[in-house]
Amino acid sequence: MTSGTVNHQPRDPEFESRIRASFARQRFMATLGATLESILPGEVRIAFAFREDLTQQHGFLHAGVSTAVADSACGYAALSLMEPGVGVLAVEFKINMLAPAAGERFVAVGRVVRAGRTLTVCTAEVTTERDGATTTVAMLQGTMMAVRGRDDVSD
Amino acid sequence: MTSGTVNHQPRDPEFESRIRASFARQRFMATLGATLESILPGEVRIAFAFREDLTQQHGFLHAGVSTAVADSACGYAALSLMEPGVGVLAVEFKINMLAPAAGERFVAVGRVVRAGRTLTVCTAEVTTERDGATTTVAMLQGTMMAVRGRDDVSD
Amino acid sequence: MTSGTVNHQPRDPEFESRIRASFARQRFMATLGATLESILPGEVRIAFAFREDLTQQHGFLHAGVSTAVADSACGYAALSLMEPGVGVLAVEFKINMLAPAAGERFVAVGRVVRAGRTLTVCTAEVTTERDGATTTVAMLQGTMMAVRGRDDVSD
Amino acid sequence: MTSGTVNHQPRDPEFESRIRASFARQRFMATLGATLESILPGEVRIAFAFREDLTQQHGFLHAGVSTAVADSACGYAALSLMEPGVGVLAVEFKINMLAPAAGERFVAVGRVVRAGRTLTVCTAEVTTERDGATTTVAMLQGTMMAVRGRDDVSD
Repeated sequence: MTSGTVNHQPRDPEFESRIRASFARQRFMATLGATLESILPGEVRIAFAFREDLTQQHGFLHAGVSTAVADSACGYAALSLMEPGVGVLAVEFKINMLAPAAGERFVAVGRVVRAGRTLTVCTAEVTTERDGATTTVAMLQGTMMAVRGRDDVSD
Repeated sequence: MTSGTVNHQPRDPEFESRIRASFARQRFMATLGATLESILPGEVRIAFAFREDLTQQHGFLHAGVSTAVADSACGYAALSLMEPGVGVLAVEFKINMLAPAAGERFVAVGRVVRAGRTLTVCTAEVTTERDGATTTVAMLQGTMMAVRGRDDVSD
Repeated sequence: MTSGTVNHQPRDPEFESRIRASFARQRFMATLGATLESILPGEVRIAFAFREDLTQQHGFLHAGVSTAVADSACGYAALSLMEPGVGVLAVEFKINMLAPAAGERFVAVGRVVRAGRTLTVCTAEVTTERDGATTTVAMLQGTMMAVRGRDDVSD
Repeated sequence: MTSGTVNHQPRDPEFESRIRASFARQRFMATLGATLESILPGEVRIAFAFREDLTQQHGFLHAGVSTAVADSACGYAALSLMEPGVGVLAVEFKINMLAPAAGERFVAVGRVVRAGRTLTVCTAEVTTERDGATTTVAMLQGTMMAVRGRDDVSD
């Protein structure tokens, strides 16, 4: 399924700096302590660490944290293939929690499955390293939208 | 569709205090500034205010914030109908963003659509008041799970 | 949540006949024995009967049948609010199976939650009458798209 | 993401014949002209051909057809890893339509991402061959459930 990420052609040669600038404006990512790990055409990685103030009632990471970071990873994976001046918004997404989010450090990888002119379909996987093995804690499938001609929504 | 919320019978007479105690342990809700508004059998409301440190790149509330609160509202709506000693976990959910989350105060209402022994299906709506009218900014449909016999996952 | 269906204004006065004509071209609906029950602005009902050749391995209606009809109900609910000449396509949807689809006759009601210029968010409910009570067997939330300027995709 | 399918261990040595027998009872698959292509632990392929009586209003395959077959592929991928005597039911799924389903022959591949005792998370991809290239027309992510102790739900 990830073969779709091969051969993605960015339409903005400055896609990397553009995403770094946009990410820096996502104040919520700073609140979560999330940082950009890597940016490729159609694939963006965001890392974040476990913190006590991000937990749900059983002491695991709140599902909303993984979801928020996976959503941003998808949004920027989609944006990496859009032409200059276009903004990106999440239309919708669906996420499955595969395992309790216990771990010290998490990585969300967002990947473009299909990039259309208006809509881009993405998946994201949130993983953690545990006892030397990689565990997938959540898996997302969603739709991102290119927004054109709106001054308040541009990246 | 909300008619399903009528006649929900709680199996734990202490459901309200149990949910308040569990919510108080959800450290992430405090981080977001979210507070329990009301608890009914099968329906839980959580409110939160706009804050600059919860925004995405265009200055709107990050979709992950609405999602996290809507997820908690669903989890507690589901828990309100579960017998004592059972824990609740989100299996999965899907959320549509209906409008840019611009506003000062938001409310997420989680409602049980069908409560089974193991799985409970819920919906949530996130609204904001704007110019005297209520705007729905997000709508969620998801599945919550009752977890039994695990000491690390109760309530 | 269904309050969103109030006050939907059709932009095509001929929306009803237009939907009837389009439904008649949906060969798969005829294959399933599904018929249009009612058409209102933003709300479309499609009915179908249980048949042995529509079942899964345990003798219940296959989830794919409810899903197909619910999808069509949403598509036409969305189309009922679109201007003349526009085509509608399903972008994505998510469906929960709430109860085994045992019954003789089923009704899928698709409702528009929010109609945008390009995207329309809908929900659908599939119900059956059993022992004098209405049982909801499935619930869908999805996104429909208005397609303009493509001769092969109109109505 | 598909690396999760490696090393799946079937708990029923007869999983293949069990799935063939169950599939043969899915009357709806015969109605759609769908056939089992291959069965591996955690991965099941179902093929079907375009037919005029399976179309939507623009002459493409109805989204409900791809969805029904993708759902069955996921259900049987999940069942391939379940112990004898257990039945499988779809809890929920979400599907994105990536391209108009134009083609002569389609294949749905269902894959297990995570197999738990009660819930199994799967993905499915529906593809078609066009001009010598493979096009993905739909992508599904969903949750299947193992049902135990019910005589009317066993495979």
